[in-house]
Amino acid sequence: MTFLEKIRSAQTKTNSKLCIGLDTSLSNVPEFLLKEENPVLAFNKEIIDATKDLACAYKPNVAYYEAYGIKGMQALEGTLAYIPKSTFTIADIKRGDIGATSDQYAIAYQELFPFDAITISPYMGSDSVGSFLQREDRGVFFLGLTSNQGAKDFQYLELTNGKKLYEEVTDKVRQWNNEKYNCGLVVGATKPSELSALRERAPELPFLIPGIGAQGGSLSDVLKANGEGIAIINVSRAICGASKGKDFAEAARSAAMKLVDEMR
Amino acid sequence: MTFLEKIRSAQTKTNSKLCIGLDTSLSNVPEFLLKEENPVLAFNKEIIDATKDLACAYKPNVAYYEAYGIKGMQALEGTLAYIPKSTFTIADIKRGDIGATSDQYAIAYQELFPFDAITISPYMGSDSVGSFLQREDRGVFFLGLTSNQGAKDFQYLELTNGKKLYEEVTDKVRQWNNEKYNCGLVVGATKPSELSALRERAPELPFLIPGIGAQGGSLSDVLKANGEGIAIINVSRAICGASKGKDFAEAARSAAMKLVDEMR
Repeated sequence: MTFLEKIRSAQTKTNSKLCIGLDTSLSNVPEFLLKEENPVLAFNKEIIDATKDLACAYKPNVAYYEAYGIKGMQALEGTLAYIPKSTFTIADIKRGDIGATSDQYAIAYQELFPFDAITISPYMGSDSVGSFLQREDRGVFFLGLTSNQGAKDFQYLELTNGKKLYEEVTDKVRQWNNEKYNCGLVVGATKPSELSALRERAPELPFLIPGIGAQGGSLSDVLKANGEGIAIINVSRAICGASKGKDFAEAARSAAMKLVDEMR
Repeated sequence: MTFLEKIRSAQTKTNSKLCIGLDTSLSNVPEFLLKEENPVLAFNKEIIDATKDLACAYKPNVAYYEAYGIKGMQALEGTLAYIPKSTFTIADIKRGDIGATSDQYAIAYQELFPFDAITISPYMGSDSVGSFLQREDRGVFFLGLTSNQGAKDFQYLELTNGKKLYEEVTDKVRQWNNEKYNCGLVVGATKPSELSALRERAPELPFLIPGIGAQGGSLSDVLKANGEGIAIINVSRAICGASKGKDFAEAARSAAMKLVDEMR
């Protein structure tokens, strides 16, 4: 299946746009799981078991696994293997480097860890992203307008061509998408009016939308702003951190169910 | 020692501004080393043995180690441990994410792998970089003007405030530097006239300058353009790939010596 077919298929099967962010560090894991050989992996497996009929996608943020060293790499590998094949997977890596180096990142996160999609920072431009766009069945979500305050520092800067930087990035991503239709855009849930304008600007691009919940974005605002476009809506802490007790997986399921009900 | 003291001390000790980029993949390693338990680590150790009196710094690009999986993480750890304590170390990671995630990257590349400095992409702005700037003894080189062609896509864009994007980034990095003096800038060797102008703009910032050799930058142009500023000049392929035979370490030493002679 192509990148877009995979997203559509996973969303149809679950009747959901929810992506669960698996940003798991040891300090998130309930105490009773710390005796497990790999507590991060054990935690993720329980979250997946409890939510796999509700989540169209899972998105581990690789930073959490890197901070956990070799056990983190094992947890990442085990987590990816445990996610049902029909569910979409995104490695949140936000990398970007010269071509020869991007080739290596593509090996890491398209082959060694065969994720369906990755996130990439656009700052280094066209020749830094080509490595990631070689395969029809693997996609890239480029950082467009991020959900954090600091987005203002550069992304909102006004260019002499009349656009803001994030709009210029969006237009460039639309060009990059023209060959294999394997590009998408990260657009923060905390900025619904800009999200709505970006949806008009790039109706064909799938959006990966983080920032609901802990970061302050509202699901109903996002759904309205996004309209009919393909969107994967990521929630991390509000689901995976819904409880720190023995009932963490049930609590995660309840939190996910509430969001999915609202989507449906 | 602080970030700047570490750089100065390493450069004084070696009388050199040369940083050797350890961008080691299995396909770079000469055949006779492939029987080693960890060929990438074995390769790096020989390069370090052959060049440690000539290099003020080593810079592994983490992409190459990620592409090699768990053995890559072991190679990265072993390489960092093998570099002499007086030599400056840079993890080329080009990360950048929201604060909570950047905290995790800081754990990974300032604590778990205790590098003296890391490279960071500025696209997500102030609150995405604070995690990396907490320690006086650890520095950050922000992507300013990169050495690749694609730098034109966004970094050169003209802003309505009269600056180019990379100049705006430079000004912001100067602000970030004001608290703990632990910031630097990545400026590509392939753009000597812009390098010279950036040196005037930010005389106090250490520059990490990649792009000599395989990417086409000229050492003499860089030295002239940089003038008296603190600079760490990175060369990867022209040293580590100088030979693919049994003499690879000697060939690396000769290539490094030639560059250092020109610097001196």
